[in-house]
Amino acid sequence: MNNFTPCDIPVGVVGLGLMGSSIAVALLIAGHPVKAIAPLPEDNELGPLRIKEQLILCKISGLLVHPVEYYVASLQVSEDYSLLKNCQFVLECVVELIDVKNAVYKRITSNTRQDCVIASNTSAIPISVLQQFVSHPERFMGVHWAEPAYMTRFLEITCGNQTALHKAEWVFSLAHYWDKEPTILRKDIRGFVTNRLMYAIYREALSLIKKGETTIEDTDKAFRYDAGSWMTLMGIFRRMDFIGLKDNAEIIKNIFPKLNNDNEIPEIMQRMIDEKAKGTKTSVGFYNYTEEEAKRWEENFALFNRDIYGLAAKYPSDIVNHS
Amino acid sequence: MNNFTPCDIPVGVVGLGLMGSSIAVALLIAGHPVKAIAPLPEDNELGPLRIKEQLILCKISGLLVHPVEYYVASLQVSEDYSLLKNCQFVLECVVELIDVKNAVYKRITSNTRQDCVIASNTSAIPISVLQQFVSHPERFMGVHWAEPAYMTRFLEITCGNQTALHKAEWVFSLAHYWDKEPTILRKDIRGFVTNRLMYAIYREALSLIKKGETTIEDTDKAFRYDAGSWMTLMGIFRRMDFIGLKDNAEIIKNIFPKLNNDNEIPEIMQRMIDEKAKGTKTSVGFYNYTEEEAKRWEENFALFNRDIYGLAAKYPSDIVNHS
Repeated sequence: MNNFTPCDIPVGVVGLGLMGSSIAVALLIAGHPVKAIAPLPEDNELGPLRIKEQLILCKISGLLVHPVEYYVASLQVSEDYSLLKNCQFVLECVVELIDVKNAVYKRITSNTRQDCVIASNTSAIPISVLQQFVSHPERFMGVHWAEPAYMTRFLEITCGNQTALHKAEWVFSLAHYWDKEPTILRKDIRGFVTNRLMYAIYREALSLIKKGETTIEDTDKAFRYDAGSWMTLMGIFRRMDFIGLKDNAEIIKNIFPKLNNDNEIPEIMQRMIDEKAKGTKTSVGFYNYTEEEAKRWEENFALFNRDIYGLAAKYPSDIVNHS
Repeated sequence: MNNFTPCDIPVGVVGLGLMGSSIAVALLIAGHPVKAIAPLPEDNELGPLRIKEQLILCKISGLLVHPVEYYVASLQVSEDYSLLKNCQFVLECVVELIDVKNAVYKRITSNTRQDCVIASNTSAIPISVLQQFVSHPERFMGVHWAEPAYMTRFLEITCGNQTALHKAEWVFSLAHYWDKEPTILRKDIRGFVTNRLMYAIYREALSLIKKGETTIEDTDKAFRYDAGSWMTLMGIFRRMDFIGLKDNAEIIKNIFPKLNNDNEIPEIMQRMIDEKAKGTKTSVGFYNYTEEEAKRWEENFALFNRDIYGLAAKYPSDIVNHS
């Protein structure tokens, strides 16, 4: 991992919550001097601690080539946006509230050069909407990370209506220094690609449970061992090729008319929201968790992530005769 | 793999096409004497060759504890259904045509005991329909395997309206000798669970492509690296717990109304059917393949399967404090 040449372009991160800290770590590992803005006073204190903690985790996982202190030395944290003045790329990771983001963009733009690329880690607000708050909107885009940002390979770059494609392509090339497998989404669609596809599954799964046609446990087991057996190797369309398209068409004719088409929040989900269940975070969800169990799920996810990418790297992303 | 006590109950397999041969191999490895019926004359010759070929593959992959010939010695192949007379379990793997299956069941039932469990590997015809063709329908069920049957862990046992649950549970316990992670689907739903969930994804993915909102390549890349990073570890509902249910509800409100609800075969799929494209099988699909490339996808899938299950086995299927 991380056998790339380090990249020494100064970059900014605004917002040092869980996600922002994790992204700052990813950028530090890639070699960037990181200028981090903590708009919330508590993050000004907690942010650097979170970052150091995660760097120690990276060290243990074998992700670092230098000691932890080497990376910490490349980090500056402040509440003062003028810290961003030499950054060529600034990533916003603040709460998903339009007004807050608008205020943050005003401060970023008034403290950076006109050609500084500005990106949001949002997964809830359309890029074309956020883009309007930024002067020179062609330099604005979505850059969507997955947790933990220093370990996952997923990175979705999303263009708004006004984004210049060559700017998105510049971030795409930068993302390889971050050890990512980036994609560029040329249109700003609601929910991005992976979210859309996953919520299509959630909708159907929740509907099957409601109708008593399967159990939560069996659905998870079946999916882990069926979809899990090809997902990382093939993706969706390659899988359809592999199964054989004619069979797919036969099954489509039978299955599409039976699929759930609801727009509403399913009852079981609404009930859990009313009960303030938040999954592993509150020990109550589709499954129940003790605090220790929840912690072990977090740890196991990080470890599994490392393992599955190690496995994926053994297989070519495409098989061509001349490879 | 296959560290289980071998199971010496005689079992029958009817139909020795690609799937039937592969299932026969799985049953031979588990220790069963296998009585295989080849209703098609060409399979009477080709079936045993396919089985031997796959046993050699298993040998190379380290799945066998005895020499290939040891397993071959437990196999009998015939066109004569009386070979099934001592079987306690018979699996039907013939073509997905109701009339053919009906005729096959008549022959199975007239050559076996009344308490012999009969199962179909169908993924297209409802179990409650097929069940009507069998005397003592409470002993009939769906047992749905994934290719290659001797390597994959997925096994979906589906009850029809008249299936006795204790019979399904007997097959469930037997399936552990086959090195499977079985599930029992108590109701006979169209498309079974994993198919329903996957076609919910296919519907949305095909719709995004049609609208030009993403590309085939980007969808596959994003899914391999996003969904792939947790699928085998968590499954669907655990993943929702892990993300936090409240966030899920917010996103549901935004995304469900945007999801595709079509019943029809998507145009891009229909066009490929008209052009007789069949994915890797004919070198033409969403991607193109030379014959050699298609063969390497087959090989890589088998290898990846072995690797991913090895990886899954490192992580507990559930995390509990007392584990």
